Amino acid sequence: MEASAAVDSSATVSAFEVSKRPDTAKLVLNSPSPPSLREELGAVVGKAFRPRASGGGRAPRCAWVLTALQCVFPVLQWGRSYTLKSFRSDVMAGLTLASLGIPQSIGYANLAKLDPQYGLYTSVVPPLIYAVMGTSREIAIGPVAVVSLLLSSMIQNIVDPAADPATYRSIVFTVTFLAGVFQVSFGLFRLGFLVDFLSHAAIVGFMAGAAIVIGLQQLKGLLGLSHFTNSTDIVSVIKAVCSALHDPWHPGNFFIGCSFLIFILATRFIEAIAVGRSFASIRGYKLDGNKEMLAMGFSNVAGSLSSCYVATGSFSRTAVNFSAGARSTMSNIIMSITVFITLELFMKFLYYTPMAVLASIILSALPGLIDIKEACNIWKVDKMDFLTCLGAFVGVLFGSVEIGLAVAIAISFAKIIIQSLRPQVEILGRLQGTNIFCSIRQYPVACRTPTVLTIRIDTSFMCFINATFIKERIVNWVREEVEASDGKAKERIQAVVLDMSSVVNIDTSGLTALEEIHKELVSLGIQMAIAGPGWNAIQKMKVSGVVDRVGEDWIFLTVGEAVEACLSAHKGAALEC
Amino acid sequence: MEASAAVDSSATVSAFEVSKRPDTAKLVLNSPSPPSLREELGAVVGKAFRPRASGGGRAPRCAWVLTALQCVFPVLQWGRSYTLKSFRSDVMAGLTLASLGIPQSIGYANLAKLDPQYGLYTSVVPPLIYAVMGTSREIAIGPVAVVSLLLSSMIQNIVDPAADPATYRSIVFTVTFLAGVFQVSFGLFRLGFLVDFLSHAAIVGFMAGAAIVIGLQQLKGLLGLSHFTNSTDIVSVIKAVCSALHDPWHPGNFFIGCSFLIFILATRFIEAIAVGRSFASIRGYKLDGNKEMLAMGFSNVAGSLSSCYVATGSFSRTAVNFSAGARSTMSNIIMSITVFITLELFMKFLYYTPMAVLASIILSALPGLIDIKEACNIWKVDKMDFLTCLGAFVGVLFGSVEIGLAVAIAISFAKIIIQSLRPQVEILGRLQGTNIFCSIRQYPVACRTPTVLTIRIDTSFMCFINATFIKERIVNWVREEVEASDGKAKERIQAVVLDMSSVVNIDTSGLTALEEIHKELVSLGIQMAIAGPGWNAIQKMKVSGVVDRVGEDWIFLTVGEAVEACLSAHKGAALEC
Repeated sequence: MEASAAVDSSATVSAFEVSKRPDTAKLVLNSPSPPSLREELGAVVGKAFRPRASGGGRAPRCAWVLTALQCVFPVLQWGRSYTLKSFRSDVMAGLTLASLGIPQSIGYANLAKLDPQYGLYTSVVPPLIYAVMGTSREIAIGPVAVVSLLLSSMIQNIVDPAADPATYRSIVFTVTFLAGVFQVSFGLFRLGFLVDFLSHAAIVGFMAGAAIVIGLQQLKGLLGLSHFTNSTDIVSVIKAVCSALHDPWHPGNFFIGCSFLIFILATRFIEAIAVGRSFASIRGYKLDGNKEMLAMGFSNVAGSLSSCYVATGSFSRTAVNFSAGARSTMSNIIMSITVFITLELFMKFLYYTPMAVLASIILSALPGLIDIKEACNIWKVDKMDFLTCLGAFVGVLFGSVEIGLAVAIAISFAKIIIQSLRPQVEILGRLQGTNIFCSIRQYPVACRTPTVLTIRIDTSFMCFINATFIKERIVNWVREEVEASDGKAKERIQAVVLDMSSVVNIDTSGLTALEEIHKELVSLGIQMAIAGPGWNAIQKMKVSGVVDRVGEDWIFLTVGEAVEACLSAHKGAALEC
Repeated sequence: MEASAAVDSSATVSAFEVSKRPDTAKLVLNSPSPPSLREELGAVVGKAFRPRASGGGRAPRCAWVLTALQCVFPVLQWGRSYTLKSFRSDVMAGLTLASLGIPQSIGYANLAKLDPQYGLYTSVVPPLIYAVMGTSREIAIGPVAVVSLLLSSMIQNIVDPAADPATYRSIVFTVTFLAGVFQVSFGLFRLGFLVDFLSHAAIVGFMAGAAIVIGLQQLKGLLGLSHFTNSTDIVSVIKAVCSALHDPWHPGNFFIGCSFLIFILATRFIEAIAVGRSFASIRGYKLDGNKEMLAMGFSNVAGSLSSCYVATGSFSRTAVNFSAGARSTMSNIIMSITVFITLELFMKFLYYTPMAVLASIILSALPGLIDIKEACNIWKVDKMDFLTCLGAFVGVLFGSVEIGLAVAIAISFAKIIIQSLRPQVEILGRLQGTNIFCSIRQYPVACRTPTVLTIRIDTSFMCFINATFIKERIVNWVREEVEASDGKAKERIQAVVLDMSSVVNIDTSGLTALEEIHKELVSLGIQMAIAGPGWNAIQKMKVSGVVDRVGEDWIFLTVGEAVEACLSAHKGAALEC
């Protein structure tokens, strides 16, 4: 054989390779087919509609019915082992909860631009439903500040609550009903994961922004102003406050409100220590997100039919419930009964609650919503996450609640797209004395193998959005290497090994990019080898013919094997020259 | 030491570990900091505004100016070595191009609802600009069918081209100017990658849909109908054709059109063979996408100022240009001059081109746009890609061109989000006799290591959208394993190794999920170890304190090392009991 090594190496190499190919390499091509899209969808749907078995083996029919009932009504499970001692703790927790819940409910109803009794109704019906269906022992259900603000800021665009309170109320109840129906269907179809779309960072920013907006709105009550804006953005509110300063305001109102606020905040500072300590263990709880969603949904559906507005788990009340020693959802029932009695006895007095007191109740709950420490932490760890947090905060503050939500979700998704758009493509080197290949940027001690360029594609989905980028990056590197070694035949690159172990999936654009990389390498007289592609990736490479084009002999399980094969093929070809 | 192994193993283990820890493990924690967001952005911006050096070393100032000029006007580069022989080939190619370009330009102007001369203008000015700025030697510039349809379908919603042609035209030129400005800025800021947002599959579907819509619209000219719809969706068009059948139609028109169509299609079938052969090598071309964008942009800006509408690279003409033997962009100049002469000589006759002939010219270009074979191929390889293709097709056909584009982009992005939403989380096993760990589903021969559960997280970005899923999957597996080994202390899981080699990046939600997994494992008395996290991932784990919580001694470079450490720690602890 007289042909030069670079041009005619492929035939020699193949013959050489077949005998020396490691056994493990065969495994890559002979792996079973991954589950198809239909099978995976089938598994997900099947799982959604199959009640979870509590134990192994086949149970008789009546036991199955009991299990199913217990699954829907967890009260049947914990109710059987419920003791008098637990009940005593729950009564104490329930009463404590009611003492916090009654003023909060009145305040939040005001925030939702509803009469005070609707806030109290919301603390009666939903907690009862949740008590028999919920899985968490500590969560306390009722109206919350942010949802109340969200409701009023959205619905007052349609109907003016002051001009037409009846229509406004009916829209609020309809929204509550629909929210309940959505929650139930999310729970049934196991769509609880959709909640993840709002990232932790977004919630931190959103809550802080909402807290400031709510706080500014309370200036109306606190200063006893009669004219005020309905807008929720900070610019309108500050303008309204400034213009209202020329109007008469009530120092008496201001004094009552401020002293009440100082009183509430002082008692809460004491409280904060207990809450902080308990916080960690609350987090450790094992909750079934989908079942929770179902329970909340039914609470809201039932609530909307009995003049309640949207109820959810209130963080401040849950913390109080926990530190007051609640043992079961029974504390929710006790609270509900207490609130009901209050409603019956003091209903007529509710209308006389001073606005300033309501404002101070609401203001007292706000500092807990602004978590500067967490925001600092997010900044330290992840700048993009901080941007999400900031986006939500600024959006709520200067735009509206909806804009804040939209900005936060948009930035969060943009983050994922950007991450997919510009994946890392790393040159690998070998750690001396081992068979470990790792990025030479991350591990500068790793040494590149002469004549073999090893490149890792660091994306789990090689698709239309990053395929061109990956292709161009690899082709440019190879070209640069070839140009750099111009004239020095011994240093010239003979093979490129693509480490595709991170590539779980690939689409048609990704496959085309692989083909084009291969074509480019062939035109430069360079051998291409692929190491350890993921399950779906290798399957699609087989179906689309990429494996045939690259050559079955050039697909390996590990980078080490691929590099060895390339080196020995080069040596073999060089010897035969 | 009398404490049981499960509860008090950590202290023992740490002492044991420090001595036996492999040297490579230190590398993971001591790797240099990855480039920060600011540094990466800086590099990207710097690259965008730095002209590419053509060689190494520092060149004198005048040479630098020449390089920069050559960079903007590639004609200065190839012009110096241009020969008479090349010119002869280019003249032939240019004349061939003009013979195809003139009827096409008239037809497409009709599709854009403009008078015929505007199509011809578009074949004069933009090709001249492209000739001095473009990098591709074969691309032929001019009006294309799909863009013409897009223009008329969008703009006729604002102004009726029949009622107010002057305003319609001025909007068309404004759109062309803006398109040019966008292209120039994309080129300047190296945003050429944005073109990738429309995946290959989407383009296949979109083109096929557009071709059918364009074809249906030509029925007006082909049948000589006077009343017709302006809508582009298939339902309106078929309704219009049906209702028009009751009106008088012109068989003469139909006859002329059909015979002309048959003639054009017959000559093209012959042509197709040459084009098909050349296609592959056209693809192999090295083009600078951003520079192309710049050239096209300037062509359109200049075009819009001289009564041209949007011009771009026409696929059919590029193929003809290539097979006619074009050597440089000179062929574009020749075509441009030929078209200009035609305009001067035959301008007055243009108005008399029969509608039926125009319709048949347009129809003849359509079969090339419908690529059924590629659609079948996409179906075979990737069902999600086929969905994108189908979405674009149906959107264009039953909605409008914009809806088709929006549907295609939405499905493409949903694909990426879904892939991030439900990452693979795989249990790994060891290949017997090796230190290779791989998925036991993909490689059923791999054996799980007793008492150590090895799990690989198969996503490159562990973030808010998948963190909860990953956490729940891992925690559920561990719980199931622990329950299954109930009572059999020897088989109980002692350690969980998380293979994070695919995880390039992580956000605050991902870090929280890792902490929660660790907390859960600690509560079950199980040791957690992490192997080979990516560069950004390990950095953020260090900053956020996750490394401290897991313990520096439990971060390893490879899965093999982590498993060995876990096994020997367990043995060490068992011996000391």
